Amino acid sequence: MNEPNLSNPAPLDAETLNNIHGYWRACNYLAAGMIYLQDNPLLREPLRPEHIKNRLLGHWGASPALSFTYIHMNRLIKQYDLNAIFLAGPGHGAPGVLGPIYLEGSYSEIYPNKSEDLDGMRLFFKEFSFPGGIGSHCTPETPGSIHEGGELGYSVSHAFGAAFDNPDLLVTVVVGDGEAETGPLATSWHSNKFLNPIRDGAVLPVLNLNGYKINNPTLLSRISHEELENLFKGYGWTPYFVEGSDPETMHQRMAAVMEHCVSEIRAIQQQARSSGTPTRARWPMIVLRSPKGWTGPKEVDGHKVEGFWRAHQVPLAGMKENRAHMKQLEEWLLSYKPEELFDADGRLIPELKALAPAGTRRMSANPHANGGLLRKALRLPDFREYGVRVERPAVAEVENTKPLGVFLRDVVKLNPSNFRVFGPDENTSNKLDAIYQTSKKMWLADYLPEDADGGELAPDGRVMEMLSEHTLEGWLETYLLTGRHGFFSSYEAFVHVIDSMFNQHAKWLDICNELSWRAPVSSLNLLITSTVWRQDHNGFTHQDPGFLDVVVNKSPEVTRIYLPPDVNTLLSVADHCLQSTNYFNVIVADKQKHLQFLDMDAAIEHSTKGIGIWDWASNDQGAEPDVVMASCGDISTQEALAAVCLLREHFPQLKIRFVNVMDLYRLTPESEHPHGLSDRDFDSLFTTDKPVIFNFHGYPWLIHRLAYRRTNHKNIHVRGYKEKGNINTPLELAIRNEVDRFSLAIDVINRVPGLHVAGAHVKEKLRGMQIACSHYAYEHGIDKPEVANWKWPF
Amino acid sequence: MNEPNLSNPAPLDAETLNNIHGYWRACNYLAAGMIYLQDNPLLREPLRPEHIKNRLLGHWGASPALSFTYIHMNRLIKQYDLNAIFLAGPGHGAPGVLGPIYLEGSYSEIYPNKSEDLDGMRLFFKEFSFPGGIGSHCTPETPGSIHEGGELGYSVSHAFGAAFDNPDLLVTVVVGDGEAETGPLATSWHSNKFLNPIRDGAVLPVLNLNGYKINNPTLLSRISHEELENLFKGYGWTPYFVEGSDPETMHQRMAAVMEHCVSEIRAIQQQARSSGTPTRARWPMIVLRSPKGWTGPKEVDGHKVEGFWRAHQVPLAGMKENRAHMKQLEEWLLSYKPEELFDADGRLIPELKALAPAGTRRMSANPHANGGLLRKALRLPDFREYGVRVERPAVAEVENTKPLGVFLRDVVKLNPSNFRVFGPDENTSNKLDAIYQTSKKMWLADYLPEDADGGELAPDGRVMEMLSEHTLEGWLETYLLTGRHGFFSSYEAFVHVIDSMFNQHAKWLDICNELSWRAPVSSLNLLITSTVWRQDHNGFTHQDPGFLDVVVNKSPEVTRIYLPPDVNTLLSVADHCLQSTNYFNVIVADKQKHLQFLDMDAAIEHSTKGIGIWDWASNDQGAEPDVVMASCGDISTQEALAAVCLLREHFPQLKIRFVNVMDLYRLTPESEHPHGLSDRDFDSLFTTDKPVIFNFHGYPWLIHRLAYRRTNHKNIHVRGYKEKGNINTPLELAIRNEVDRFSLAIDVINRVPGLHVAGAHVKEKLRGMQIACSHYAYEHGIDKPEVANWKWPF
Repeated sequence: MNEPNLSNPAPLDAETLNNIHGYWRACNYLAAGMIYLQDNPLLREPLRPEHIKNRLLGHWGASPALSFTYIHMNRLIKQYDLNAIFLAGPGHGAPGVLGPIYLEGSYSEIYPNKSEDLDGMRLFFKEFSFPGGIGSHCTPETPGSIHEGGELGYSVSHAFGAAFDNPDLLVTVVVGDGEAETGPLATSWHSNKFLNPIRDGAVLPVLNLNGYKINNPTLLSRISHEELENLFKGYGWTPYFVEGSDPETMHQRMAAVMEHCVSEIRAIQQQARSSGTPTRARWPMIVLRSPKGWTGPKEVDGHKVEGFWRAHQVPLAGMKENRAHMKQLEEWLLSYKPEELFDADGRLIPELKALAPAGTRRMSANPHANGGLLRKALRLPDFREYGVRVERPAVAEVENTKPLGVFLRDVVKLNPSNFRVFGPDENTSNKLDAIYQTSKKMWLADYLPEDADGGELAPDGRVMEMLSEHTLEGWLETYLLTGRHGFFSSYEAFVHVIDSMFNQHAKWLDICNELSWRAPVSSLNLLITSTVWRQDHNGFTHQDPGFLDVVVNKSPEVTRIYLPPDVNTLLSVADHCLQSTNYFNVIVADKQKHLQFLDMDAAIEHSTKGIGIWDWASNDQGAEPDVVMASCGDISTQEALAAVCLLREHFPQLKIRFVNVMDLYRLTPESEHPHGLSDRDFDSLFTTDKPVIFNFHGYPWLIHRLAYRRTNHKNIHVRGYKEKGNINTPLELAIRNEVDRFSLAIDVINRVPGLHVAGAHVKEKLRGMQIACSHYAYEHGIDKPEVANWKWPF
Repeated sequence: MNEPNLSNPAPLDAETLNNIHGYWRACNYLAAGMIYLQDNPLLREPLRPEHIKNRLLGHWGASPALSFTYIHMNRLIKQYDLNAIFLAGPGHGAPGVLGPIYLEGSYSEIYPNKSEDLDGMRLFFKEFSFPGGIGSHCTPETPGSIHEGGELGYSVSHAFGAAFDNPDLLVTVVVGDGEAETGPLATSWHSNKFLNPIRDGAVLPVLNLNGYKINNPTLLSRISHEELENLFKGYGWTPYFVEGSDPETMHQRMAAVMEHCVSEIRAIQQQARSSGTPTRARWPMIVLRSPKGWTGPKEVDGHKVEGFWRAHQVPLAGMKENRAHMKQLEEWLLSYKPEELFDADGRLIPELKALAPAGTRRMSANPHANGGLLRKALRLPDFREYGVRVERPAVAEVENTKPLGVFLRDVVKLNPSNFRVFGPDENTSNKLDAIYQTSKKMWLADYLPEDADGGELAPDGRVMEMLSEHTLEGWLETYLLTGRHGFFSSYEAFVHVIDSMFNQHAKWLDICNELSWRAPVSSLNLLITSTVWRQDHNGFTHQDPGFLDVVVNKSPEVTRIYLPPDVNTLLSVADHCLQSTNYFNVIVADKQKHLQFLDMDAAIEHSTKGIGIWDWASNDQGAEPDVVMASCGDISTQEALAAVCLLREHFPQLKIRFVNVMDLYRLTPESEHPHGLSDRDFDSLFTTDKPVIFNFHGYPWLIHRLAYRRTNHKNIHVRGYKEKGNINTPLELAIRNEVDRFSLAIDVINRVPGLHVAGAHVKEKLRGMQIACSHYAYEHGIDKPEVANWKWPF
């Protein structure tokens, strides 16, 4: 076992020990009170059934160790004037966090009716886990929280995201041993390889082995001590153990170990900062093995409760019917001796009050946990400088993400300490590698000589690459929540890996919008690239444009989706997204070479509108069209345009209007999303009765889901990815899913009244061309060059 | 370092060594050939541009170590007559797997045109990563594959799923060091705590540290040897190291270490089996540190390639323009001396051929990797015996999942070795705990005395609980793919954690449907419970019914979605799902007490139809209704019925038809899904012009996405979860999302022509009742008892 060389293994004098224990008793009293009481908050009269809530909710089991850790961190904050925040991995143990927050006064400052007196405490208790009241997790409403802990798995990556580029910040994160079994958490321990002791702050994980999940033991609590120690050493940490249940011993031990850890952290930082040499440190961490439901009922009805899974939620129930249980509850609550802890008004006594830090040193009032307060707008270069020249539309080809990489390079340069780029080893693959001209990939693990040849590694790199979308997303979320900016790019199919994290972050932002005291934070900007239509060669597993279907279920207040068709629109959208706040911006743009459609002025106009008629591609000027060809997405637009060419060649009289959709939410009714077009505007684009062939980047049904209320909906025929894929060429993949030019042109012929018969021979011809393309692909392994290199001829 | 006590550190005699190396040269030759050649497969004439493919695709980097491992396992299969299969975590290194599969003849047996001769080899090369050809991952088309390796993270959990209940099986799994960075992989190492050495087979992981991802070093290859060893000891493994690049040394070392591992595995099994005492073993594993792109070009254009990230995909390119590259390719290919390895016909020479096992001992022909061949239908008790009596509809209340638990208990009993139940520590929480009467939770880590009191743990338990949805899903997928059966239950909101795994498994099944040689496997049965409408108390993070929106994007051939409203329908559906094959069945049913609607006969009829009019709840008999009230889901049905009551009370003349949807795909057009209703049937249920109020369990837009083509679509008004949530009571949560009885009744009044005016005062009254409910909830913390306890009064 690592036995820290403790200068003093029992650093607390008798009075301090007594006070710290008193403070913890107060926290535990509050936690139990929140779960049980709706009245008689300090038990100044005997407990009666009507004092007890009708519905008992909340999780006692995790709470005591949370407040225990919180309080011990408070001691060190005061002692060393630390700048610290607190993340509760077991967020369902909110009573163990809300208690200390209330006691240090922040809760009352933000919610004055939860004042520091009897009335306030009564309300604080009653409203916990009560309709419209205080959540049972560390929700956005919780002062000092940047991690709700509703869905498990992200506490450690969240802790690191907060610590990056915050050299003075210490992030304490309690990790539950249940959460520790999840995949995202298991790999996030490796985040220590990405923490630069010079420019970044520190993370102090406290793995709380309370031994149980809901009904089951936890794996990490039931392996040998040696295995546990090896595991964390293997992860690159220096683990210290605080194990036991006797409060006095545990207070001394926790105080000694935590103090040792803080000194070690400061020593690592000082060494690195004074030498100017960042190296990967074996940072300290704490394994706190303590009983589940510590200090709660030892037994209930003959069953072990404290230190067992039965302590997980509400250890005692049925009080209103079971007098013995009520009695036991009363005894339990009184065992904390609330009368010693709170004064006549119900306020924590001054000796204890003095233990908490003051002002913004309180973890619940630290501005890093309300990062919008610290946020500085990004310095952005003029994105127009990075555009491509487009003299004629749909002629030149450029890799769409490449100029974005150059733009991001300069964003990194202009914002050297509050902007980072995230990607799962795909920034180069995704053609964003220009960034490396300014800043490399962050790398603190070992180096080899060959890294000099294009390795692009540096200990102070600002590009974060790890093959874990979970970890990246976690880092980025709290990097933003602590007031900074970022950009995340990922393969389209594998963005589904973080579906649930997207959901949780969108929910967090949605609630924040209702909290006036939470200052706006930068949006999370996610570029989805290496998209389905260019994953023909990787095959079926790499073809999934369905992340958008997940996004649209979340609140319209926080979600934005853009599908810029070319370089200039992508730059314009990226510039917009980087300036925005409180959104989850999703940008879909492929990395391969694509046709360029709009010059910069047109791109800006189109991006601003989000949807519009492309006059140069339409021939319905001054008249009602016979058909509307619509597109959304890069490849989808190319094929739709090529279809228009085919049609104009064969049916010069046919009036075709070409509409491009870049801001997907434009399609929804204005009542459903702030970006929704009015029906009048929608109808003026899509007509009220003409056939619309809509070529969509993703699953076709999504367009119907967004536009089903529109006047002309019954005439909108959407093409998109229909889950038909395997090893293929791009064009052949398009043909299989009927988003190719030939299928689209045939669609038009079938839909425009009168054209069906007149166009029969054209259809036959188009079908022949389509088959010829297939034959070519199956023979040569590539697409027919004249089709693959198609350009707009007009 | 663990130095195995090798009886012979160089077990290969000169001839065997020479042959094994020859076999590996053949594999590497094939891997490179697949990537580059479309003709002249054995280079019997000088390499010319037209021999080279037009598009160079595939991943060379991971391939050599895959075939290296495959061949060394072959040696032991022959030596010990092992029953083994092979999983390639880096599935993109398919050339390294396809090579040995082709050489041992299985490929040609299944695909006779890829015969073991020059013509066959030419086609085998040409079709690799070629349109309509051989995938670049270990796709379902790959003989012997049960793990595609397209999306990274699941190789180890997949290996364990195959090993469970297969005591004689040895699963070799190569884990890439890229994949090892993902969360799901990082926690899946703990699967060793769930492997019972008596009844289960063994897993031999080979962590291949080739050092690089696409462009980046890997974390595990750049930490100290001590950390790496500690990490795996901490995970509970006994790691052995095979490190180097010299083929001769590496062959001897791999042979010795792998043989040692196999002996150790056999010793562990023998010891446990002879003593009858299953204990958790520290199973052996191998760390194979070998150069990326091993044996490939050392340098290209002055850049290091072998042993560097530049070897990841195609190490040499631009051959057609760059003669020097073509020359280098030719030299590289010839360095394997194909002329020594293949006979005049292009067939592997007999001395090498003899190294492969024969028949079903070949890993590519092992029936466990085509598990449908081994699958035995489940023995199922008569589900009708587990139903509840329903004398009158919507009066009695039962916890819907509880009788299912009893049914599953007996399924476990009747199928003691090929059925398992999976859940992330939620089987009890989800009310399926009756299962424990037959079989406990699988637990091989340490035990404590208190476990006897309701711990429900046993080393031979058949309930698999770990707080990692990823690991459970991974286990279950291959448990099914190897021919067994299973049942997975999970919290609704957190099923999104495995969205991407669902996508990948659905894609796998979809492709299998096209492969006649793949025998059908059992469906993956997923029960989604603890649903949104009863997560009012856990708050917003626990409210997300959007998994269904992900499911519907996948192939209709493999996806099924059921929302049984009560116990008897749930049992009937579960019985059906457990007998089905090749589907991903999703069942949504909450665990709390709910009204019971249908007796068993009615439930069976309703389940069979999947949709239907509930006559007892309708009063339109013999007439066209004024309005259709439709419901889908348990709570949704309760509220819709209560709305009908309110309406019938106030408008006795109003003809209301009540339709319940249980099989969600009934709503889609029959052209889109095998379960889709014909338009005629749909219209006869929903009318062609009457208002339909549709109360849905999930996000309301999903219904529109499914039914937008229906005649009466414009009159279908869907209510569902609109992402309005926080701490609440059930009814209050319903009210916020307008799925409550009052909102629904008001909806009807607003939609039925004529009723709007006549019903104004009723609407006011209903609004008043709704407000009273809210007030009650906010005052008492629970729902108004007379509303919460509502029953169907007729």
